[in-house]
Amino acid sequence: MAILTPTDVTVRVTWLGVVRDRAVTLESAPRDSLSLGWDGPEGECHGGLTRPSCSRVKLQYPRGTEIRNARQLSILSAEELAAIAADLGLETLPPAWTGANMVVEGAPDFTQAPPASRLIFETEGGGPGASLAIDMENGPCRFVGETIEKHRPGHGSAFPRVAAGRRGVTAWVEKTGVVALGDVARLHVPPQRVWPHARPARSPREAAAG
Amino acid sequence: MAILTPTDVTVRVTWLGVVRDRAVTLESAPRDSLSLGWDGPEGECHGGLTRPSCSRVKLQYPRGTEIRNARQLSILSAEELAAIAADLGLETLPPAWTGANMVVEGAPDFTQAPPASRLIFETEGGGPGASLAIDMENGPCRFVGETIEKHRPGHGSAFPRVAAGRRGVTAWVEKTGVVALGDVARLHVPPQRVWPHARPARSPREAAAG
Repeated sequence: MAILTPTDVTVRVTWLGVVRDRAVTLESAPRDSLSLGWDGPEGECHGGLTRPSCSRVKLQYPRGTEIRNARQLSILSAEELAAIAADLGLETLPPAWTGANMVVEGAPDFTQAPPASRLIFETEGGGPGASLAIDMENGPCRFVGETIEKHRPGHGSAFPRVAAGRRGVTAWVEKTGVVALGDVARLHVPPQRVWPHARPARSPREAAAG
Repeated sequence: MAILTPTDVTVRVTWLGVVRDRAVTLESAPRDSLSLGWDGPEGECHGGLTRPSCSRVKLQYPRGTEIRNARQLSILSAEELAAIAADLGLETLPPAWTGANMVVEGAPDFTQAPPASRLIFETEGGGPGASLAIDMENGPCRFVGETIEKHRPGHGSAFPRVAAGRRGVTAWVEKTGVVALGDVARLHVPPQRVWPHARPARSPREAAAG
């Protein structure tokens, strides 16, 4: 029985890029296309089948733990980027400054798209192209704010607050392929509902203690 | 910023198993422990980093397309298995008949746990053990019904209907490790909400046509 459902939501790629060497810069360099392998976008330094865990999952794993890389790509929406820019007092927020791999347009509240959704690219032949599995919302971090601050002093420090809930999603490659500017992907979603049986653990320490 | 939240929900492993060779049988053979690698449980024939797509994702990919294997494990709940058994007129439904890799107890409506949740096993030392990422609800299929029918004629054919919404989840390994009977895992969940912007595509053909 099929669980994942094709929806009427499609998005179009307006920007692509890769972070080549995070030791040099966290900004991404623009690309006309991305070749997506099992380990992520070719040339992206955050790629790999696994990754050392970072502070974003510090409530799950001690920093540096080898875990599967569900953050192979950072995908943002053009509409949310424009909204963040406006709130920062900027005419525009270049995707490169956020370290994005992909910007798409056409889905409202893209950051809130359901975890485990798939973005399946369409091809001229009608068959499926590359496919990306959305892991979940990406959390804003101060590094992007620092990058903005460097380019436009006085406009970056509010980024973590202003970008909360609008910073796009992280994703991993479910099907390999090449994605180019202008390509279109359809959103496929798992059943949506709120599971009422979980409350936050009272403290991370308590959670760790079991 | 952390997005994945530790919850107060923990589950305990009551059964483990692997399907050794699906050409021989879809039933799983019981195990006292499972060694979980990046490609899934050791000895499980549905393991692998990638898999050929099956009828469960026929609305996404032509059958046999190589995709990432988000179905490395099938996890069911003891409570839901008992409920299915009762509705089939059985005293008990052996997990092996469903091809399960793991049965856990302690989470109500386990099948409905949020997609992209993590089950992180606890260790005596307090550090994280193996971790499993829930992809989503598993859809019932007629093969399990046929297996039940073989063992208990007259009790299996209703399985797909009776098990809908209670057939457990599929999962992939986020962190490797060994899981044994009696081990306890904590559920970590992404933000829960219903995204109101997606409606089912009017038909799979239309969806494929873009």
